[in-house]
Amino acid sequence: MSLVVAVDIGGTQIRAAVYEPNNPSPLNLKRVRSFALQPGVFDRLVKAIESVWPAEPVAAIGFSSPGPLDPYKGIILATPNIPEWTNFPVRAMLSERFGVPVHIDNDANLAGLAEWKYGAARGHHDVLYLTISTGVGGGVIIDDRLLQGYHGLAAELGHMTIDPSGPLCGCGHHGHVESFCSGPSIARHVNEQLAAGAESTLHADPNLSGQQVADAALQGDALARAAFAQAGEYLGIGVANYLAILDPSIIVFGGGVSQVGDLLFKPFEASLKKHILHPRYLEGLVITRAALRDDAGLLGARALAELKTDSVKITS
Amino acid sequence: MSLVVAVDIGGTQIRAAVYEPNNPSPLNLKRVRSFALQPGVFDRLVKAIESVWPAEPVAAIGFSSPGPLDPYKGIILATPNIPEWTNFPVRAMLSERFGVPVHIDNDANLAGLAEWKYGAARGHHDVLYLTISTGVGGGVIIDDRLLQGYHGLAAELGHMTIDPSGPLCGCGHHGHVESFCSGPSIARHVNEQLAAGAESTLHADPNLSGQQVADAALQGDALARAAFAQAGEYLGIGVANYLAILDPSIIVFGGGVSQVGDLLFKPFEASLKKHILHPRYLEGLVITRAALRDDAGLLGARALAELKTDSVKITS
Repeated sequence: MSLVVAVDIGGTQIRAAVYEPNNPSPLNLKRVRSFALQPGVFDRLVKAIESVWPAEPVAAIGFSSPGPLDPYKGIILATPNIPEWTNFPVRAMLSERFGVPVHIDNDANLAGLAEWKYGAARGHHDVLYLTISTGVGGGVIIDDRLLQGYHGLAAELGHMTIDPSGPLCGCGHHGHVESFCSGPSIARHVNEQLAAGAESTLHADPNLSGQQVADAALQGDALARAAFAQAGEYLGIGVANYLAILDPSIIVFGGGVSQVGDLLFKPFEASLKKHILHPRYLEGLVITRAALRDDAGLLGARALAELKTDSVKITS
Repeated sequence: MSLVVAVDIGGTQIRAAVYEPNNPSPLNLKRVRSFALQPGVFDRLVKAIESVWPAEPVAAIGFSSPGPLDPYKGIILATPNIPEWTNFPVRAMLSERFGVPVHIDNDANLAGLAEWKYGAARGHHDVLYLTISTGVGGGVIIDDRLLQGYHGLAAELGHMTIDPSGPLCGCGHHGHVESFCSGPSIARHVNEQLAAGAESTLHADPNLSGQQVADAALQGDALARAAFAQAGEYLGIGVANYLAILDPSIIVFGGGVSQVGDLLFKPFEASLKKHILHPRYLEGLVITRAALRDDAGLLGARALAELKTDSVKITS
């Protein structure tokens, strides 16, 4: 059986690793800084891959990157974190450089794939993975297959409108799940309430972070707690929608905002129960946290390379 | 190759037909009244099936019914149109009676499957079917497979919240796509506007139908036209959401309200363009009307039976 090389590139780090089948640990793993706003990102990527490249044959490279990207053509369309990469044919360039097939998808899809193959959703066939962080992203497994869609743009779960008169989303539309539930959205809500005269231990600050709001909430600040309660309420509406459409057996929450725990998830669960179309959707439904954390993108890239490689037999 | 028997039961009609592989026309077809509110629906169903049952071997029965139902257990959970059938094990009962495997799913899912296999979506691998009628229902094909979900409750597209402060839906929740776009929802909106003093050729009437509003709109009535424009606006928000999650290559619109044409679809298209997350979702996207009309449920039941029957080779 052949080895695969997995690569995960983000705004701050490039990770490259080589895996053998059925061994959870990498044979070799390298982490380097991306310096993603500076020229030469691709050269740094190639160097990181070279540093882990094994002597034995490699079947394929799996590659994870922020989107949007076209997984079928192997092109990064645009990614805010790496401005140099616009309509960037990363698959062809890596394939030419390393002489093996390259398979790419976005980090949220691949984190979902990783949780299904190696993490919290092992053994499930229908998986909804939702990461709540600076943005809200998703990865969906249906019937043991990654949902990619016709253009490779499926599972953009954060960009579902749940209130057309809701707050402005980073994408320019209004009332998306992300515009209620992401860390910056929660902080913006607190700033708006402070500007309107609400009392709090927090002070209006354009750089206020979701983490600072979480810290204040954990110390009992009423405004901060209400901000998470509102995010949980809208998250429940969004998830009720996902369930009506996708009807998974497990929901896996990843991302930093998910770490806040009950502050978000108690109001979320109450809202989900209130908004679910039929209680049957919740029967046997597992709601849990991601198991893989920082290496989810890397393990997803590994899973993608393995799934796409005929010579590797995948059993899930 | 073996024959399959297809059955479609609705509030008014039972259809039963027998099909041979690769022949679009039934060898035998029977339509009878359901008398669905009266006792004895199952007996009438059995009689209809018997009346078309062929001398040659039958591989399977495919069965279409209004939902909600459990396709894995073969049980009708509850269907407002057939009150006698609550937790009704139709699969076991038909299988015992006719001695062949029986496969069931709801009418909207199977209409989507039929459009993919025999109708407007032939050749597409990722299909969104949306029926807009008394309710709003959906059927979704992903990667040439029917989306059913863990509980068999996926693709309830009409019950996605797009405005939590929106109108009351038939299901008891607020602001679902159905509560803006179904025929009764459009008529209710007109009644509300009339009660608020709007001018129109229409008169406030609790029995006002979507069809009457459509007729008035086609004759230029401004209130009726505005009612369809609003439904189209919200339909565009809903469909933008479906695209962000599912990213299909074709959208097929079925159901009576879809017949109204530009009155609904011009505002819909403008709204979809406005609300779509990224224009790339619309590249090459086909938006069209259902091809199969009244026989969609029957042909979907046929397709389901064929797909589930190993002895019949399916090429799509």
